[in-house]
Amino acid sequence: MKINNIAGIKMAAASSNTRYGKRDDSLLILIEKGNTISGRFTNNSFRAAPVITAQAHLERCFGKETVLMINAGNANAGTGKRGTKDVLACCKSIGQEIGVNLESVLPFSTGVIGEHLKTDEYVSAFIRASKRLKLNNWKEAAKSILTTDTKPKLLSTVIKSGSEEIAVTGFAKGSGMIRPDFATLLSFVFIDAKINKTLLDNIHNEALSKSFNRITVDGDTSPNDSSILVASGKTKNTIKRGSPIERKIRSSVIEIYEKLAELLIKDAEGATKKIIIKVMQAKTEKQAESVAFTVAESPLVKTAMFGNDANWGRILSAIGRSPEVNDVSKTSIHLNGEPLAKSGNLHPRHSELKASKAIQKKNLTVTIKLGLGKNSFSVMTSDFSEDYLLINSDYRS
Amino acid sequence: MKINNIAGIKMAAASSNTRYGKRDDSLLILIEKGNTISGRFTNNSFRAAPVITAQAHLERCFGKETVLMINAGNANAGTGKRGTKDVLACCKSIGQEIGVNLESVLPFSTGVIGEHLKTDEYVSAFIRASKRLKLNNWKEAAKSILTTDTKPKLLSTVIKSGSEEIAVTGFAKGSGMIRPDFATLLSFVFIDAKINKTLLDNIHNEALSKSFNRITVDGDTSPNDSSILVASGKTKNTIKRGSPIERKIRSSVIEIYEKLAELLIKDAEGATKKIIIKVMQAKTEKQAESVAFTVAESPLVKTAMFGNDANWGRILSAIGRSPEVNDVSKTSIHLNGEPLAKSGNLHPRHSELKASKAIQKKNLTVTIKLGLGKNSFSVMTSDFSEDYLLINSDYRS
Repeated sequence: MKINNIAGIKMAAASSNTRYGKRDDSLLILIEKGNTISGRFTNNSFRAAPVITAQAHLERCFGKETVLMINAGNANAGTGKRGTKDVLACCKSIGQEIGVNLESVLPFSTGVIGEHLKTDEYVSAFIRASKRLKLNNWKEAAKSILTTDTKPKLLSTVIKSGSEEIAVTGFAKGSGMIRPDFATLLSFVFIDAKINKTLLDNIHNEALSKSFNRITVDGDTSPNDSSILVASGKTKNTIKRGSPIERKIRSSVIEIYEKLAELLIKDAEGATKKIIIKVMQAKTEKQAESVAFTVAESPLVKTAMFGNDANWGRILSAIGRSPEVNDVSKTSIHLNGEPLAKSGNLHPRHSELKASKAIQKKNLTVTIKLGLGKNSFSVMTSDFSEDYLLINSDYRS
Repeated sequence: MKINNIAGIKMAAASSNTRYGKRDDSLLILIEKGNTISGRFTNNSFRAAPVITAQAHLERCFGKETVLMINAGNANAGTGKRGTKDVLACCKSIGQEIGVNLESVLPFSTGVIGEHLKTDEYVSAFIRASKRLKLNNWKEAAKSILTTDTKPKLLSTVIKSGSEEIAVTGFAKGSGMIRPDFATLLSFVFIDAKINKTLLDNIHNEALSKSFNRITVDGDTSPNDSSILVASGKTKNTIKRGSPIERKIRSSVIEIYEKLAELLIKDAEGATKKIIIKVMQAKTEKQAESVAFTVAESPLVKTAMFGNDANWGRILSAIGRSPEVNDVSKTSIHLNGEPLAKSGNLHPRHSELKASKAIQKKNLTVTIKLGLGKNSFSVMTSDFSEDYLLINSDYRS
């Protein structure tokens, strides 16, 4: 895939030589002035110091030259007053180095919770990165923010409208502690266009609601979730809401987010399968969403999927305990088109042999029709494997 | 432990020679007339045929000679009209054999969902059992209802009041698909006394709310959950509500239920630890309960416990995502008395060494003080081990 640079966005990474040895873990992204930045942060009441700081700084850096300062390996969460002091010290040092106000530095952290940040080491790495900022360091950037992820998640596209070309490029990380609101991750996406804040927030919200808000790995969320959507502001004309080019940008941005979300699920901790839970014929969208997440987060469903067991009884049990459901008598369940259940019971055309064959695929779609109305909701998830267990029982040690 | 017989309660088990080979899997319990029976059933909207039938029959068998007919190995759930026909056929055959109306037979099933019951085999086993009903077959009974459980759960106690002696004896099964409302299980408890239905229901509800409603293994529930509390009616005097003897019976029954719940958690699928999540200083009991269950069901908390990792960041993250919580700034966390977190951050007296030592114990208590009020709630749970995963990815095959 061709990765398109974005005018006015430069980046570089370096190693703090702390948790991950020589691996890059400290990323700086410099955004030239004239930009617009939309930020969305964790809804967990437990919030890391950098999240609180980034959110506060975002209110004040409007349009100015801005630095995104991202470290992996330490979440700087649950670190109290010292955590706040540490993150502000990093912002100040990097601000001085780049020549911007400390409030124009937005900090992001991911990694172990409850340990103090080694500020000297990270600052030194950020300073080294600041000396080699480039337009085309995307791969280095996407790699540097990973924790338990096994692969970088980097995507890019170009929108053509007449003679105009607008690039969208972005990357994300996250493979456990994933669910809405919103999925546990860091995500940074850049649009090579001039877009006002209200419109950018609107596009960002729609993109999140269709992507990171529809995936779950384990139902757990983190204190560090952050999603940043940047419009570089480098094009001549401001994009107008409802214009053909705006609609193209919006759908391309949504597609980038959807694909990033899919990459997160494919690289979910220990995942052996990508599973779509597609709920249809619900009375309300809330009911469809509740059923989709209850099934997607059921440990018994997820372990059955891992074990290649088309155990529809567990799926129906999860539907039946969803707080929004009090009737499964019209529920049907299909797996990649294979009939499993009908009217809340074994499907008359159910074939254990065919179902067993269907579930061995890497990509599964469980279609649940509730027979109660016309609303739908889909969630993407992964299975629970031995590796999920080993990764998460051993993450800190 | 001495197991006390209950006048008027006889039982025996036999093997249907289906799923479990020669192992007993078919249990009959005969309850002489004059009894009172309280039944509570799954709140899952997906309900097995035997649950629907048992609930309907219970409305009509008041005080008459009654049979509890329990099979393990097949849940007869999701089996549609044939499932209902099958369970009624079994009730009819056994009713004729014993000499009672089919509505005096209460059926219970546990095992695989979505397969049709082998009625001939089970009926033949029940008939064999019916020929050797005895007062003292408790161990055989407790063993015959097990599925993935590794141990029978059988408890007994005697209440003394003056010259009177009242025995309480009961047993349960369940080791996965466990959570309220209420825990996924079959439970049968018998009191050697005359107690009216209203009082018995009241004692049953209080016992459930303090036991099976406070444990969780995986947050999943089943279509077959049933809890039966029987008063034999064989004593001379009817127990009066509020009398000293009633209070003694109530507390003994509650204790039996609490201990059965504890036995279920100790034998939870793959469990290596028994974990109590004790939430205190909550604004409301609902808030305390929500926090306790969110922490107890967090896959990241449960895998950390299995891995002997005192990862309080995951505990605080789970507290912070509880829908009832919007402030963790006053939250403290202790593990078996060891300080982990204070005011939503790393505890100043936190010692990684001591915490690592504390978490290696088999019995863990996580004490969470929210600092928001005066309400409490405790939940008992288990860890997520490799064995949980292997058991559940391989249960049907």
